[in-house]
Amino acid sequence: MTSNKQPTAAMIVIGNEVLSGRTKDKNIGWVAEQLEQNGIKLVEARIIRDDQETIISTIKEIFKLVDYVFTSGGIGPTHDDITTPSIAKAFDVSVERNKEALRRLQEHYKGTNIELNSARLKMADIPKGATLIDNPVSAAPGFNIQNVYVMAGVPKIMQAMLDGILKNIKFGKKTFSISIACEIGEGNLAKGIGEIEETESDLEIGCYPWFKSGVIGTNIVVRSINEDICNRAADKVKTLIIDFGKTFTIIK
Amino acid sequence: MTSNKQPTAAMIVIGNEVLSGRTKDKNIGWVAEQLEQNGIKLVEARIIRDDQETIISTIKEIFKLVDYVFTSGGIGPTHDDITTPSIAKAFDVSVERNKEALRRLQEHYKGTNIELNSARLKMADIPKGATLIDNPVSAAPGFNIQNVYVMAGVPKIMQAMLDGILKNIKFGKKTFSISIACEIGEGNLAKGIGEIEETESDLEIGCYPWFKSGVIGTNIVVRSINEDICNRAADKVKTLIIDFGKTFTIIK
Repeated sequence: MTSNKQPTAAMIVIGNEVLSGRTKDKNIGWVAEQLEQNGIKLVEARIIRDDQETIISTIKEIFKLVDYVFTSGGIGPTHDDITTPSIAKAFDVSVERNKEALRRLQEHYKGTNIELNSARLKMADIPKGATLIDNPVSAAPGFNIQNVYVMAGVPKIMQAMLDGILKNIKFGKKTFSISIACEIGEGNLAKGIGEIEETESDLEIGCYPWFKSGVIGTNIVVRSINEDICNRAADKVKTLIIDFGKTFTIIK
Repeated sequence: MTSNKQPTAAMIVIGNEVLSGRTKDKNIGWVAEQLEQNGIKLVEARIIRDDQETIISTIKEIFKLVDYVFTSGGIGPTHDDITTPSIAKAFDVSVERNKEALRRLQEHYKGTNIELNSARLKMADIPKGATLIDNPVSAAPGFNIQNVYVMAGVPKIMQAMLDGILKNIKFGKKTFSISIACEIGEGNLAKGIGEIEETESDLEIGCYPWFKSGVIGTNIVVRSINEDICNRAADKVKTLIIDFGKTFTIIK
């Protein structure tokens, strides 16, 4: 069962290179974990093309459905970096040279042999009214407009930006989670686990089968924003396993 | 620029465990690579919750927009495996015990100490009119209904199912791709690369910055379904790099 007591979020990865398989996305998993730890429920993730119409329609559809939208990718200096103007269009605002973003880029490139040319200056162009998101790695900021947080695609930069964002947004109750492993096939556990889940509200149990050197087993993940419910359900799962004459392991 | 000469596809990963960050998705990257190698263009990927309404609305929205939809996850024996009935509902058909699926499960479990109980029998329930997708790993089949291919979530099983599917569907022209690395910041290359892309149709160039031990550089990926266009554009990129007084490396 799902709970309404946590803010919800969606993650949008923008980049042809992920859809071609050339780059394996690492941002969704990272964002998912960080949000989970902070009591925000990631309800959907999408990977979309560097295509203006697609970005606009996706943002327009998603931003109304969740409390927070996070995007990664497409805010660099090259021709295929079209996230900023596309998101501005989605909210019907113009893009303008942002003085503070410009100052940060000038500061960053000062004393290097890298020229702040017109391509790099593009990274100081920010939708009107948006708030900057700090980039402690390479200066060029992300931005926040409405409930949309626009981050870089490079994982190291995205992670640093997300750290900053998470200091300033509203969290929900943290989800408690207990993972239990046993050497019982999920087909044998199915009935009992289904019954345990039905006994409580605000409880979610997932079963994930595994096969290791000829042994079949299942990891059972019990989740709730209520610690008592989580513990109680985990105890029932342990009893179920013992009733099968097997032992269990709590996994990290 | 995009080309219309390849069939298009979308990938839908169904699973709360991916959105909670507990499981890192490996299926999207795999499917993306396989499709790329087979001339099918992956235009979007989504990760959605094990939630009936969400699965139904996502499938109903997506199946009209692309030539092929691939899903992974949620076809096992436990209470949280709700993909099959949800997709049946999306196409307004009933789910029935499939005789061939049942035969495969019986065959698979015969002579093992695993009981084909009611939970496992659920895996023989298939939407009416759907075609089975072979599962050479653990027997329980996926299925194909309309243009939607429903696969297991366990990567090893999903990969085996996809292998089978790809033998039977229509391919497009293969995409040719050349990746070129150089030690030039993408901000310096931006103008030149943008100009090269504009000179050709059916050409897509992506720029991906990297930072290694204090050196900044860019990987430039040139892609086209036309080999001549791909080679010609790659030559122009190489010339651009040489004009900067730098060398390039072709990367795999």
